[in-house]
Amino acid sequence: MIPTGFSFSAINAGVKSPQHKGLDMGLIFCDKAASVAGVFTSNQVKAAPVIIGMDLVKTGRSRCVVVNSGNANACTGIKGIEDARAITAAVADRLGVGHSEVIPLSTGVIGIGLPVERMLDKTAEMINGLGDDIHAFSRCIMTTDTFPKIAFRQAGNARVLGFAKGAGMIAPDMATTLAIVLTDADIGSQVLDNMVKRSVASTFNAISIDGDTSTNDTLIALASGYVSEDISKVEIAIHEVIQELAMMIVRDGEGATKVVEISVTGTVNDGDAKTVAMSIANSLLVKTALFGCDPNWGRIIAAIGYSGVCIEPHGIEITINGYTVVEYGVEAAGFDENTLHDILQNKEIAIAVSLGKGSGGFKVFTTDLSYKYVEINSEYRT
Amino acid sequence: MIPTGFSFSAINAGVKSPQHKGLDMGLIFCDKAASVAGVFTSNQVKAAPVIIGMDLVKTGRSRCVVVNSGNANACTGIKGIEDARAITAAVADRLGVGHSEVIPLSTGVIGIGLPVERMLDKTAEMINGLGDDIHAFSRCIMTTDTFPKIAFRQAGNARVLGFAKGAGMIAPDMATTLAIVLTDADIGSQVLDNMVKRSVASTFNAISIDGDTSTNDTLIALASGYVSEDISKVEIAIHEVIQELAMMIVRDGEGATKVVEISVTGTVNDGDAKTVAMSIANSLLVKTALFGCDPNWGRIIAAIGYSGVCIEPHGIEITINGYTVVEYGVEAAGFDENTLHDILQNKEIAIAVSLGKGSGGFKVFTTDLSYKYVEINSEYRT
Repeated sequence: MIPTGFSFSAINAGVKSPQHKGLDMGLIFCDKAASVAGVFTSNQVKAAPVIIGMDLVKTGRSRCVVVNSGNANACTGIKGIEDARAITAAVADRLGVGHSEVIPLSTGVIGIGLPVERMLDKTAEMINGLGDDIHAFSRCIMTTDTFPKIAFRQAGNARVLGFAKGAGMIAPDMATTLAIVLTDADIGSQVLDNMVKRSVASTFNAISIDGDTSTNDTLIALASGYVSEDISKVEIAIHEVIQELAMMIVRDGEGATKVVEISVTGTVNDGDAKTVAMSIANSLLVKTALFGCDPNWGRIIAAIGYSGVCIEPHGIEITINGYTVVEYGVEAAGFDENTLHDILQNKEIAIAVSLGKGSGGFKVFTTDLSYKYVEINSEYRT
Repeated sequence: MIPTGFSFSAINAGVKSPQHKGLDMGLIFCDKAASVAGVFTSNQVKAAPVIIGMDLVKTGRSRCVVVNSGNANACTGIKGIEDARAITAAVADRLGVGHSEVIPLSTGVIGIGLPVERMLDKTAEMINGLGDDIHAFSRCIMTTDTFPKIAFRQAGNARVLGFAKGAGMIAPDMATTLAIVLTDADIGSQVLDNMVKRSVASTFNAISIDGDTSTNDTLIALASGYVSEDISKVEIAIHEVIQELAMMIVRDGEGATKVVEISVTGTVNDGDAKTVAMSIANSLLVKTALFGCDPNWGRIIAAIGYSGVCIEPHGIEITINGYTVVEYGVEAAGFDENTLHDILQNKEIAIAVSLGKGSGGFKVFTTDLSYKYVEINSEYRT
């Protein structure tokens, strides 16, 4: 399942605190220069590793990704850039690769400097540990995730393997979270970049847990080039891996009890459909109603109405898991509140909204909002 | 405290259900034609009473406001318009005023038809009950409100009295919620309209509980004209009443444990400052951190960064209740996490953000997000 050329390592470096004993630092190494592509957060406040990574992927070649959880290295100024560079330089020197061939990724608390000394002390151990333990690696990037996120597809002779870290601070507009996709297919960096960006538009950029766009969101793709394979097969595999990772992130949304698909059609263009879908997905009132199985469809209509997209209220149709709830902007004939209440007991909810204005459409994935979300996010650090 | 010319009534009409016994329907009557002005929701899905009210205030004259809670009469189509008109017509006929002189206001669940028969059956009782019980009236518009909202100011010889209904589905972009402002000052409807719109911009349009913009938000102002008073004095009193009502709504935000003032300065213009302030105010991660007294200022910076307004990350300064948290976009020198944690125990939090780009500024008011919000909104109907 491991694409040819890649090896992995995961260690404890006490990133969050010297007392913290879990895996919190890791490495992916490619034994030759790989094609690289990246998608980064649209947040104007970008973490140090994002600033560095955006620059490095422009070279099109990379050898190594070094990651840590427990500290985002964001809002740390010049010092944050220097800290990240100190770590990537130490890793590069020890691996015998160029400083610009090591991409840093960080996730965790914003605004606190990286514990550089503790991390540097562990680089030798981390590099010596390189091997095939992808499961340990998948755990070292977790923060509030409740399960590790790995996806795999075979594309003819080529392999595509992906990792992601999700759970909170998830919103569209960029890669949204940390994700790494590896393949041994022979793909140029520009082609890889196009593939990843196309895929992200309907996957990572179509999910929202809480509407909060992180400072650190990054997706990095590496292609080692060992296997010549039909490029369209590889693209499908890469897309499926990215899609599966995105859905894992939704399923592991902080405190989520339901996965909710919101499909909007009948808008003038796809962008409008996405705006309406995200307005519904990010409505606290819709999210809490879904959590409580409250058949309060008026909250969906309200979120459609304030999305900013021009609509015709009497053109709105809504179905939930196939059950028609709203027709012509009012309660559907024969609608029964108890039936909808029963439908909402499902763990998978599909809300389909039709607006009757054109052929635009978009589908987003989100979750409900539970007590647990409040618990997780009010007690993250204290 | 009652402006000359106005009388009040509040009754139980079983609006939500025949079994529901609280006050849920009411009336304000002016014994002569009053100047009228209104501000209405920006949600494109407008409730029937909003559609009717927007039309009626254009006449500039009104005699009566008839309100109900427990049913928003929204997304009810032509039938909803007919229902509202049936009730206002019955009230108008019995009071001997014109049909176009009675303004309907509704709040409650979206999408269910008004129980017109039950409401019509009670119009005689309601009109017979007209008197000076403003406290009963203030209660008949409550939904999830935990306290009635009345504000009063004397402006020389003139009086200004206001009522509001708040708690949930509160977001900017319009009057946001139901509010009624009464004065006996002699003011033309155009002047009254200007006063109200100026006031709303920095009050009702500067508060957000959950970012959800209702289909029913309406503020109606009536001036009976009995008292000639300095117009600037009256404007100040009207503004103060509206401001006090807006702050009461924040204080009574669903599940709120804290009132949070977010002041943004140093933007290119005031609109940018409002966008940034609302981005912070509506961030679930900021709201839950405030609830948990979590000194996680990175979430504030992240919300600034994804607001859409062009900023310079290194120009960001943040103070919380006067304590400097962020300078030059990074943790302030001498910042202590425990100190901020202690500060966040306060029930009144003032977050001041300076962006160093210009002279724009805006202040918004919001609340934290607690377990109670989830409880209230996941169990509203079922």
